[in-house]
Amino acid sequence: MNYRLILLTLGRILILAAAAMIPSLVVAFLYNDGAQFSFIISIAALFAAGAIPLVLFKGSRGAMHPREGFVAVALCWIAISLFGALPPFISGTIPNFIDALFEMTAGFTTTGATILPTVESLPRSIIFWRGFSQWVGGMGVLMLTLIIMPSGDRGAQNIIRAESTGPASERIVPRIRKSVAILFAIYLTLTVVQTIMLLFGGLSLYDALLHAFTTAGTGGFSSRDASIGAFHSVYIEYTVGVFMILFSLNYGLYFAVLTRRIGQIRRNTELKVFLSLIAISTALIAADLVRSGIYETVSETVRHSFFQVSSLSSSTAFATTDYNRWPEFSRILLMCLMAVGACAGSTGGGLKVVRVVLLCKAVGGEVKKIIHPRAVRAVHLNGQPVQDKALTGVKHYFIIYVLIFIAAMVVVSVDNMGFETTFSSVLATISNTGHGFGRVGPGLNYSGFSDLSKIVLTLVMLIGRLEIFPILMLIAPSAWRRV
Amino acid sequence: MNYRLILLTLGRILILAAAAMIPSLVVAFLYNDGAQFSFIISIAALFAAGAIPLVLFKGSRGAMHPREGFVAVALCWIAISLFGALPPFISGTIPNFIDALFEMTAGFTTTGATILPTVESLPRSIIFWRGFSQWVGGMGVLMLTLIIMPSGDRGAQNIIRAESTGPASERIVPRIRKSVAILFAIYLTLTVVQTIMLLFGGLSLYDALLHAFTTAGTGGFSSRDASIGAFHSVYIEYTVGVFMILFSLNYGLYFAVLTRRIGQIRRNTELKVFLSLIAISTALIAADLVRSGIYETVSETVRHSFFQVSSLSSSTAFATTDYNRWPEFSRILLMCLMAVGACAGSTGGGLKVVRVVLLCKAVGGEVKKIIHPRAVRAVHLNGQPVQDKALTGVKHYFIIYVLIFIAAMVVVSVDNMGFETTFSSVLATISNTGHGFGRVGPGLNYSGFSDLSKIVLTLVMLIGRLEIFPILMLIAPSAWRRV
Repeated sequence: MNYRLILLTLGRILILAAAAMIPSLVVAFLYNDGAQFSFIISIAALFAAGAIPLVLFKGSRGAMHPREGFVAVALCWIAISLFGALPPFISGTIPNFIDALFEMTAGFTTTGATILPTVESLPRSIIFWRGFSQWVGGMGVLMLTLIIMPSGDRGAQNIIRAESTGPASERIVPRIRKSVAILFAIYLTLTVVQTIMLLFGGLSLYDALLHAFTTAGTGGFSSRDASIGAFHSVYIEYTVGVFMILFSLNYGLYFAVLTRRIGQIRRNTELKVFLSLIAISTALIAADLVRSGIYETVSETVRHSFFQVSSLSSSTAFATTDYNRWPEFSRILLMCLMAVGACAGSTGGGLKVVRVVLLCKAVGGEVKKIIHPRAVRAVHLNGQPVQDKALTGVKHYFIIYVLIFIAAMVVVSVDNMGFETTFSSVLATISNTGHGFGRVGPGLNYSGFSDLSKIVLTLVMLIGRLEIFPILMLIAPSAWRRV
Repeated sequence: MNYRLILLTLGRILILAAAAMIPSLVVAFLYNDGAQFSFIISIAALFAAGAIPLVLFKGSRGAMHPREGFVAVALCWIAISLFGALPPFISGTIPNFIDALFEMTAGFTTTGATILPTVESLPRSIIFWRGFSQWVGGMGVLMLTLIIMPSGDRGAQNIIRAESTGPASERIVPRIRKSVAILFAIYLTLTVVQTIMLLFGGLSLYDALLHAFTTAGTGGFSSRDASIGAFHSVYIEYTVGVFMILFSLNYGLYFAVLTRRIGQIRRNTELKVFLSLIAISTALIAADLVRSGIYETVSETVRHSFFQVSSLSSSTAFATTDYNRWPEFSRILLMCLMAVGACAGSTGGGLKVVRVVLLCKAVGGEVKKIIHPRAVRAVHLNGQPVQDKALTGVKHYFIIYVLIFIAAMVVVSVDNMGFETTFSSVLATISNTGHGFGRVGPGLNYSGFSDLSKIVLTLVMLIGRLEIFPILMLIAPSAWRRV
């Protein structure tokens, strides 16, 4: 293990995180909300912690092997969550450090799970930082998909390989530096467009920015206790609803649009499946809601149905209504959408649509093989055959995902919150959605869990966000044993 | 598809089923409970339906390919459940045929799910038939593992291959006819021993036989509404508790005992894991129950803990207490045990311990591979390497299992029974356990579900019992298309 290289990477990320805290410091001064001092200390701490390895290991070289990459990624996400928890902790906004760590991990992993019963009375700069962390985390995830994952994670790597005609496999443009710049430009442009559209809807600049940030990261931290429902605006609901979907698409598709490779978009299986899932689920849930007569008009029913489908498919978990009170069928469909998640190469969470598509195709092929043992069929995606290695990676990913899910449920169950809440809390954190059902439903929070559960769920958020392997590497004893 | 051969097999099975109904007819005459006529009609119907293909297709020959085998097995199980539902339906004990079909499918699949709120007031011969069907179903499952599965199902076949040093791979003795006889002798002997032991505990011959039958099939249909708890006997509880475990072990192990190949038993990974799971779960649940102070003494706590662990691990689901009221941690552990299930080559249900062991080893190996990419490690079982094909089969089995689980949940959710009940009902049927939690907990029943859900759960019981593929074959359109 090349420790110097790992610490050097960590140092660079901490300096970037210090810079990312400056806008929140500006907000603190603008509103004079009393959190200025806590941001100054936190920025100083981040800068110091980042500078030490940069000075000590300056000029360190060597290859970044998958395991070094994984450990570095895991450590970076944990470190920025730890340092990110300083402002709410030091300012006294979240007096328990485990709570603050949970909250900010939910920020940087773009999960949006919260331990805060209310946010409207808290310092605006702290709420800004909490929301901004989701925007930063979202960009981090996009970079991760682009740079680190392809060299290491068998799952993500193979998905990108699997989409061999898709944009991701070409890694957008050959040189990584340029790719990051293009990704960032797309991300920033979409965020700016959404901010302007929200301003048109009558939101203040603060609210517009905050909701654009948390939509972009598909995070879902709102500045309002009633989430998007607080604005009582059909325009705002549809705007946010559509942008949640836009931020859940593979960013390579936007690049394909820019370079006029429309054929690539038309061939993209994941896109078709994702949009079909949203359309079908919206229709099914609307029908279920009409049947149970919860809302007065059909247009209101369809609006809430579309918004929640978009919100949970994209793993954002904004709310316009208490979907916890919806009938079981609608709720289970929403849970399925949470588990499936968004498209690969987006800021969204979950298993990713492409993985689920490949899984279904693989097992469908298995059944056909029993029926016609001699027929040879390869699984295709985007009109191209998928390598066996890629399929195996996806299968392993799914199996490990389910096993981790069950293990986390067993630990969280000690809190005796009831089956639905136990299940939901793990689903909402592993899929980086944030809100689920039962006692972690919309408008509710995780403050009722024990510290042990909060730590486990914090870990589960990281596992979901970093696609399992980096965190497993960090805790697997054999990673640290010399061969 | 060789239809003649399939129908010929079906005919033979139906004649056997007609014979299996005779003891219940005798019980009906003994107690003169009014169900005599319905048994006579049902036996006549079974005999006629069985005789027709036997006469028509006498002397049909040809090879039984996997797909013919699968279709035959699926049709046999469906047909005996349909005909088996006649006595309770004709006698008016269960006036709705879908209910009767659900009940008897729960019998022949040894699931033990019931739609009956009470059994004590019903004709004794019908309750005997319901219990006896689980003994018949249990023997059917043992024969299936031995004869049909090895030639077809990739999952089960590979498991048997995977245990290459284990007894199952040698198929106990080369000739299948002799193997069946030995299996039957072991099954019968264990049942007789249990009956005698229950008689010693003061049970009537009727109760002793019925509970031995339903323990042997790991089915769990009792003649008492309060299940085993009705006897208020520590001796009976421990006897049934131990026999549920004995019936959940690979029957090849008994043959190894008979032939003094003790080394085989000592090397058997599945056995060690299964017994460890039971010991550890009993201890953890007992600790959780002591913590929550539900029972007065530690010995009572341990007794209930051991009994429910044995009952749900073996997929029997007898009850001595309302474990629905236990704390969440205990309940989730029990759900995990239900999902894992019993050992392969037993009458028990669930995923089977060996599959879970192989899954864990496979994904553990995957993590190690990322850490040390060049290290080559094969997964071992019983001290021998496992073939890749076997591992792939197990992974596919697990993935299809989870996908079917989710699909069934979506359909059942339409009944709006709440998440825990929806989840539990699918888990309890796919694992052939019968009882779960929530509204399908101990002492409760499935009568509140809609006909659609009952049909889906009936199908899920068959899918769980026949290890997925035969039923999938039957409903896959491509199985019926000519190539």
